[in-house]
Amino acid sequence: MKPIKVGLLGLGTVGTGVVRIVEGHQADLFSQSGSPIEISKILVQDKNKHRNISVSSDVLTDNPWDVVQNPDIDVVVEVMGGIELAKELILAALEQGKHIVTANKDLMALHGPDILKKAADKGCDVFYEASVAGGIPIIRTLIEGFSSDRITKIMGIVNGTTNYILTKMSQEGAAYADVLKEAQQLGYAESDPTSDVEGFDAARKMTILGTLGFHANVSLSDVAVKGISKVTKEDIAYGKRLGYEVKLLGIAERQDDHISISVQPTMVRTSHPLASVNGVFNAVYVYGEAVGETMFYGPGAGEMPTATSIVADLVAVVRNLNLGVNGRRGFVPYKEKKLKTDEQISSKNFILLHVEDKAGVLAQITQVFAEYEVSLESVLQHPNATNPLAEIIIITHDANKAAMNKVLNRFESMSVVHSIKSVYRVEG
Amino acid sequence: MKPIKVGLLGLGTVGTGVVRIVEGHQADLFSQSGSPIEISKILVQDKNKHRNISVSSDVLTDNPWDVVQNPDIDVVVEVMGGIELAKELILAALEQGKHIVTANKDLMALHGPDILKKAADKGCDVFYEASVAGGIPIIRTLIEGFSSDRITKIMGIVNGTTNYILTKMSQEGAAYADVLKEAQQLGYAESDPTSDVEGFDAARKMTILGTLGFHANVSLSDVAVKGISKVTKEDIAYGKRLGYEVKLLGIAERQDDHISISVQPTMVRTSHPLASVNGVFNAVYVYGEAVGETMFYGPGAGEMPTATSIVADLVAVVRNLNLGVNGRRGFVPYKEKKLKTDEQISSKNFILLHVEDKAGVLAQITQVFAEYEVSLESVLQHPNATNPLAEIIIITHDANKAAMNKVLNRFESMSVVHSIKSVYRVEG
Repeated sequence: MKPIKVGLLGLGTVGTGVVRIVEGHQADLFSQSGSPIEISKILVQDKNKHRNISVSSDVLTDNPWDVVQNPDIDVVVEVMGGIELAKELILAALEQGKHIVTANKDLMALHGPDILKKAADKGCDVFYEASVAGGIPIIRTLIEGFSSDRITKIMGIVNGTTNYILTKMSQEGAAYADVLKEAQQLGYAESDPTSDVEGFDAARKMTILGTLGFHANVSLSDVAVKGISKVTKEDIAYGKRLGYEVKLLGIAERQDDHISISVQPTMVRTSHPLASVNGVFNAVYVYGEAVGETMFYGPGAGEMPTATSIVADLVAVVRNLNLGVNGRRGFVPYKEKKLKTDEQISSKNFILLHVEDKAGVLAQITQVFAEYEVSLESVLQHPNATNPLAEIIIITHDANKAAMNKVLNRFESMSVVHSIKSVYRVEG
Repeated sequence: MKPIKVGLLGLGTVGTGVVRIVEGHQADLFSQSGSPIEISKILVQDKNKHRNISVSSDVLTDNPWDVVQNPDIDVVVEVMGGIELAKELILAALEQGKHIVTANKDLMALHGPDILKKAADKGCDVFYEASVAGGIPIIRTLIEGFSSDRITKIMGIVNGTTNYILTKMSQEGAAYADVLKEAQQLGYAESDPTSDVEGFDAARKMTILGTLGFHANVSLSDVAVKGISKVTKEDIAYGKRLGYEVKLLGIAERQDDHISISVQPTMVRTSHPLASVNGVFNAVYVYGEAVGETMFYGPGAGEMPTATSIVADLVAVVRNLNLGVNGRRGFVPYKEKKLKTDEQISSKNFILLHVEDKAGVLAQITQVFAEYEVSLESVLQHPNATNPLAEIIIITHDANKAAMNKVLNRFESMSVVHSIKSVYRVEG
């Protein structure tokens, strides 16, 4: 039987995992997919570099066109990362009628529609399960598992680095900067951690999940992003006392035809299933009108979990090849994108204020909320041991973002309000 | 465009949910599947019964052959339950070349191989996502999402009734019989609760999950089953003190080529993701060699969650119809089933003994474990306030079932051991 030939772009951590699974699971993959699968070319930067796996030197190339224009290759697996070159190579491979499996969230978040359109034109598959939440098959779940339902909310812990940092801060009462340094030493955070800690990585993943969940082409620029670099151990301690854990959540919501997508540190009630997702684990919570609450939990990154998703996509391409239906099961958004205005975006909020410690201040504060019709769930005031100011913690009921912004603007201008120490969205 | 015609066998809770989704989501289902979907015949027991949904009387029939032998019908959705008649009707429908969607776990656990074989012979689809864990798309996840991995362990909270009872017992310190009665009043437990509380329902679901996870035809008789009717509030309280929650777990394990499947009340460490799955929710934990730990959480039953899974299967059938590939993506077990012996089945264990409260007893007890090479993780002894006996709680390290049985048999025959109060498997 003719083997399906795979070209691999990249042989870093994830690429190595792909080779391990394809070589190590030959018999199972044959039974699952109906064909032998063979990795016949691998693009690397340095053919002579020492590697942790043995790969025949004939298979290695430092010329990407040996892969994407190689007439023997049926499927190109892209695990090199980056955007411009990866896009060029994938489009060139599609032009040659090759099917694509990619783990590249940046590429899919920015250029997904172009790539999927080209794939549809050429009758090719493009699968990207590994691009979001590593080993969790969340993309399949949204496309196939919930095809009958109308999803109204997706909340994801989709960045392992920030979840590791927040978990450590919560469990050990440690400060952000200290935990970040430790995470960098352990290899859980990069030396330039901006993309993770400022929420940009999570935003790219939410772009992909929002598009799949709501059947409309969401753009990265539609996502309101706030990272965790301003989260303090005091905020986390306050949250705990009130029954919340701070998590960096990507939140995609739909009401009727209007959607909103955001990434922000969020107070999650401890009884909510997302609150106990700890360390580098990821989880995606999906609420559907019919199904109700569901959650999908697993490793968000790493050599073997990510490779599992990539090779599962490869099996899907091979199954399609054997049925002759490639490019005919692609995901096509069929709804027009309509974004919510700030008046339509609504959530509970946690606000920590430092105010002058004198009579009547609390009344002035609560009066501002009343003026903008923001109703309150709870208010806590107590003197702060270390300075002459009082602390007020307010949790609102659902309030729209426009009204909340007006409230916060008013606080900025009030002399009794010394500072707005923190504002968090609240969920659960 | 020609609509796909569906015949529905049964119009109880779940059948009603299917009608609601198919009628209510027409435009979305068309976009998702590529064809209009129409329910054209529904088998009911009494055509004149009052119903919560309006269905044209032409559509109702009390003759099952009007559905399964109706030449206009493309897909039969079976939500009538029961075994013999359901099997007969499904086989007859397959004989006519109709595709099948079923929520019937009893049928699939007992006769799955026969039905899938008939479907393969006739080139028909048989999908049964709703048969396990209601709204959680766990069957797709095992077949598609983890097609590249080798699963070594599946642990499921797959029965909502028992999880509701155990959660209430844990949260309120209530006794089994009281909570069962309350669950029956609320409709969470049936008047004859045997199938749920004795673990038989969970065993059927684990038969299906084990077959899918390990690619071998597991039989219901391969599952070692123990229910929750002997779980006491004292056991739960002891578990809590030691950091465990008691859950009814279905556990399917594989080591090399040998598998074991069981259902039993289990002490689950509170840090394990299954420990916080509460109430009527279900969850399936899957461990794969490459992916590591994953968990899938959601509603295990109910009209709309179950209907979501059924209609997602229906969408899959219609997609296949439009591609002309029905019956060619079926799940075919390709491994020979080899069951573990008791010597090969291994777990940690919790044992609560009542023993005579005198010197040397603990030494005698621990000597028995040593004799059968069962090593201990922790031993707690304290006098029991209410009687002259002492209580000993032992948690073993991993021990094989054969050795554990020998240990327990010895305890039965020792005069200082008054009684073996309880034995639980321990996980996490």
